[in-house]
Parts: sequence; structure tokens; C-alpha cells
Amino acid sequence: MATLCRPAIAVPEHVITMEETLQLARTLHADHPQLPLALRLIGNTGVQTRHILQPIEDTLKHPGLTWRNNLYETEAKARVPAVVRRALEHAELTPRDIDLIVYVSCTGFMMPSMTAWLINTMDFPVTTRQLPIAQLGCAAGGAAINRAHDFCTAYPGANALIVACEFCSLLYQPTDLGVGNLLSNGLFGDALAAAVVRGEGGEGVRLERNGSHLVPDTEDWISYAVRDTGFHFLLDKRVPGTMAMLAPAMRDMAEPHDWNVSELDFYIVHAGGPRILDDLCKYLDLAPEWFRYSRATLTERGNIASAVIFDALERLWADGGVAHDARGVIAGFGPGITAEISLGTWSRAAGGGEREGQAPGRSMPQPA
Amino acid sequence: MATLCRPAIAVPEHVITMEETLQLARTLHADHPQLPLALRLIGNTGVQTRHILQPIEDTLKHPGLTWRNNLYETEAKARVPAVVRRALEHAELTPRDIDLIVYVSCTGFMMPSMTAWLINTMDFPVTTRQLPIAQLGCAAGGAAINRAHDFCTAYPGANALIVACEFCSLLYQPTDLGVGNLLSNGLFGDALAAAVVRGEGGEGVRLERNGSHLVPDTEDWISYAVRDTGFHFLLDKRVPGTMAMLAPAMRDMAEPHDWNVSELDFYIVHAGGPRILDDLCKYLDLAPEWFRYSRATLTERGNIASAVIFDALERLWADGGVAHDARGVIAGFGPGITAEISLGTWSRAAGGGEREGQAPGRSMPQPA
Repeated sequence: MATLCRPAIAVPEHVITMEETLQLARTLHADHPQLPLALRLIGNTGVQTRHILQPIEDTLKHPGLTWRNNLYETEAKARVPAVVRRALEHAELTPRDIDLIVYVSCTGFMMPSMTAWLINTMDFPVTTRQLPIAQLGCAAGGAAINRAHDFCTAYPGANALIVACEFCSLLYQPTDLGVGNLLSNGLFGDALAAAVVRGEGGEGVRLERNGSHLVPDTEDWISYAVRDTGFHFLLDKRVPGTMAMLAPAMRDMAEPHDWNVSELDFYIVHAGGPRILDDLCKYLDLAPEWFRYSRATLTERGNIASAVIFDALERLWADGGVAHDARGVIAGFGPGITAEISLGTWSRAAGGGEREGQAPGRSMPQPA
Repeated sequence: MATLCRPAIAVPEHVITMEETLQLARTLHADHPQLPLALRLIGNTGVQTRHILQPIEDTLKHPGLTWRNNLYETEAKARVPAVVRRALEHAELTPRDIDLIVYVSCTGFMMPSMTAWLINTMDFPVTTRQLPIAQLGCAAGGAAINRAHDFCTAYPGANALIVACEFCSLLYQPTDLGVGNLLSNGLFGDALAAAVVRGEGGEGVRLERNGSHLVPDTEDWISYAVRDTGFHFLLDKRVPGTMAMLAPAMRDMAEPHDWNVSELDFYIVHAGGPRILDDLCKYLDLAPEWFRYSRATLTERGNIASAVIFDALERLWADGGVAHDARGVIAGFGPGITAEISLGTWSRAAGGGEREGQAPGRSMPQPA
């Protein structure tokens, strides 16, 4: 059975705090009629720090799509190998053991994809399947886990490597002045993640069932306009209310698995914004502590797109994990509006992990 | 076992002939020092006609990426549903029977992807998995078949819909003047294709084994430069020689299946250009007639990127197909350099098809 092993995460070295973000908004948009609303929305995100590729003064420049996509490629090639190496170490595998690379990123475009470069550069087999996904946005992390799970279900001895590389700061568009844009400018951050799905063996989340759900007729709620200046991110004000539709989808998916989605042992969900986490508490009847790993990712790194769920999952690991056979859900949310949901149980190798003696089943987590 | 059913193909209404292409090259590039070479290369493609979205005078304009990507979206939405409906009819399925949509296209970019629009517009289940692939170029048709095959292997009762939508004419770059660009301007055409992979039942190619192969260190042989003006296609002069590496890869993949790739009953391969087909004859020791469907696609429609293999496969169907249990290979080639290869046998329902009485096994095809 496929097991999602411990992710590896990296963030760029430049940091911007919420106070700096708010000050920038006040300076850049002093005459904006909705500045007070934008400032309130940014404040409400709870995003205290974000990591970005370049110093903020360079981030605010737009030297054109040619320049930005070149930087995307240079930085991806400079930063991806390290997270891949660590993810392989976590899974106790080498590149030669990998059968599929799923590369997800919605903040740059390359053809050939980074998958080809990784195979050439890191000595993956030339027969490694390449699955680059650019058009699922923040849901792509969940999609990557689910397609890797499908692949290992089809070929039980196979292993899949997932890479998520998101440089959201390269999508800053100085001429986009809607309130949704001003909010996005204070919400998104840059990060990279990698994780291995092992077909056999390994410690981590034993993947049991996955599913996808599209909320009908919400295509224009989260979208890109593709222009001469690159991708222009459009965020509709209805997006924060999406959990009213997606919490039931999570419940429906768990039901045929004989699981009650409100009674699981861990929750790793996309932290698109604070309302998503608040609403999941409400609709799934859960205390906020159940989402503390996703909340911590949002607070410390902002919305890092497809990398969020891996960062949150890594925090669960760093916190000691949960008991063997504890049940949980991983869910990515993104444009469509699409949810990519996965159900699995925590699996420990005999003798490993500091909570080994803990009884399986549900225990209220300590408040963060 | 997964079966690739009969594809549906559509081409836009505007046509450009080789003579018109050559005349245009002479007019537009009268002072180009390598014009004679470009004319010779275009002549050698054997591409007699191509279908394009717009009249040629509009095709030659570049009103910017914003404009072009809008046209891509408008035309994709106008043209994709018809091929999808026909592909579903061929498979005797309805949208409600589909579990996965693989949408491949390297000539436009949308987020949300066309998969979300299709689900909303054509009444596919909201739980349909979405797999949009934009970065595998001409190899994406083969990748789509192979990932659909994997999915149906993981979930034997499931069905996958493949859509390939390629408007190569929207990538015309008037300022790109390398010989490879001039050749490309005479080689690529526009087309759409759809096909269903049924997990159970259905007539068509029973998919048995698939594989991928990357030729090491050839990333810059076929690539996009992503610029303010959109995707700029770069074609290296070494590309036509790629079959020296990929024919052995096809042989190696067939070997563990106990098949000799030189002794199959049908060959559906990407017709990237004439040399690819000529070299496959040489390296696989096959007469040109074995590639006549791919050759016909190239001659009548040009290189239609990820749609080539579906168009060639449809020609095999239109020609009466082959005998039940006849063995064949489908191979897409594209950037990386990557080959996506699939081995399968022809499967007919009892009583269907005009060659029903034909004995299984190999018989030399009639010359076209």
C-alpha cells in the first residue's frame, strides 16, 4: 500500500513581515479608495512572515515575463535538488528507485518540464515517468499526492517523487489594483516542497482512498488571466466562503470509507486563508487546534500554494507525528473551485518515533 | 483491462497548402540568407495541407499574448465539446461514466483548466479527476494514453477521457527567423482530438504495458522560451536524428513483454517530421507502409503536436482496423527528448468490424 513519506521543505532567504506588508500597502496605495478594507483584510490573514525570492524592492519591479520566467527557471534549478535529496533520504530511497516524478507549480512555465532536468541532473532512471502539472494551482499539491497514490496502486512496487515549487512573488502585478489583488499581495509566499510516495514500506501516511470535487460554476472565483505581462491572479470575494461546499464534499468522500470526517486523528488542509480554517472548524465541528499545523504554515509562510499541505504535514512530523494507525485527511483546495482529498492512516515502522507507546485512536491535540 | 476506444478528430476550417507556405516564405523572407535551405526543408516535410484557426493573413499577425491566449480559450471552448461527444459515442459511454479527464495542450494556458469547464459544461460528475498537462508538448498525447492506462489499472472499473487541443498556429512568432523557426512555420498545424480509455469493455486497443524514455541531455533540442510575446518554439537541427536513440528504447520496452518491436501488426507513432518515419523504418527494419497512417496525418494536416497519434489511430480505424488480437505500438515523441510508448492488442467485440474473419497475426499492409 502506498505511503506518503516525510516531506522536505525549503523557503528562500528574504523575509517580509506583516507590518512591512501593511506599511508597503499604505505607501503604494495611499490614494486607493478601498485601502482601509485592504489593510483590514491583510491584517485578518494572520500571516506574520513570508519568505520571498528577492529583496522586496526587486519583488515590486516587473521587468517583464521574459525576465521573470528566466528567474523562475534559474531559481527552481538552484533550489529544487536540495529538497528532493532530503525527501529521498526521508523515504530511504535513491533516485534510481523512483518510477514517477510529479512536478507541480503554477508560478512559472518550462518546456521541457523540470522533470526532464531533474532526471538528467540527479540521475533518475531515463524511464522515469514525467507528470508536470501547471494548471491546478493550490489544489495541485493534493492532486500530486492523489495521482502518485493512483500510480502506486496500479504498480504496487513503484515509487513516486512529488515536487512542489511555488515562487508566488514572481506573480506580483503592480498594475492590478482590485481589493482581491491587494489582499493577495499580502497573502502569498514562496516555498518548495518534495515528498516521496513509496509503493511498499516506508513510514508516514498510508494512503487509502482519494477523491476530487469540483464546486459547480465557480471557475471565475480563482483564476489566471494570461497576459503579455504573465499570469494575473484573480481572487473573488466569494472564495473565503468555499468551505460551505467543500466540507460536505470531504464528508461525502469519507463516508464510503466508513469514516466520519469529523472524528479523525489528524487534519492537513490547504491554508488558503484564515476563513478556510475557521469554516472547517465550524462545518466539521472541530476545535481550532485540529488545524494548527495548517494555521502555523499560514502564519509563518503565508499561502504557499501547492506547497502548503506538505509544509503542514512536515510540521505534524516535527511535532512527533501521531499514533500508529491514527486516521487522517489531507486536502488541497484551489481553482475550479477544486478539492483534492486523500484519506490515510499514520504508519510507523516498529520501534521508531517518540509516540510509539501511544494508543491508536483520537486524542485532543494540545493547543499550539 | 483498459481499452483505448476510437478517437474523434476535428480540424479548423482554414487551409493552407504547401505551395502557399513556400510562396509565403519566399515573400516574407526574401532577404534571408538561408531561404533556399528553409524552402528545401519545408518541401521535404511532405506536408501538403494544414488546417489553421484563422485566415492566413490573421495568422501572421501577433497581437500579443493577451489576445492570443483569449482566442485559444474561446476557440477551445467552441470546438472541444463536439470531439468529446463523438469520442464518448465511440466508447458507448456518457459523461456520467467518466472518472478522469486528461486534457493535453501546449499551445495555450488556462487556470482553471479546460477540465473544470468541461465538467461544468458537459455534465461530467463533479468528482471527475482533472489532469491537465501543458508541458510535455508533442509527447503529451502518448502521456495521456499512458496515464489513463495507469488510472484504469489502479481502478479497473473506471473510465478516462482524453482531450488533445493544439492550436499551433497561435504560436507563430514573426520575429523568430532561425532556420528551425522557418521550418516550423511550414510544419505545424491545428487540430483537436478526443478518445476514451474504458476500464472494462469497449472495442479498440487493449492497453497492456506502457513506458517512458528520456534521451539524456537533449533538453534544449525541443523547447519553449517563455517571453513577453508568449511561447517561442525552438527546434534544434539534431531533432530529426532522434530515432537513433528512441527506436532502441521502443525495442527495450517491448522486450520484457516478449514482443519484438519489429514484428508487430500496427504502428501508430508521432509524425513529428518525415525523417522520424524514415528512420523508424530503418532502425526497426520495417517497410514505409507500416507507418502510412502517421504519414497520412503528416501529409494532410502537418505536425499537429499531441493530436498526431490520435489522428493516425483514427485513420487505422477508418481503414477497417486490424484483426482481433493483432499486436501494436503507439508512441508519442516530444520535448525532453521524451518518448511515451504503449503496447496493446486490437480488440473487437464479437460480430463487429469488417475484418472480423481475418486471422490474427501479421500481414503486410497494402501500400497506401
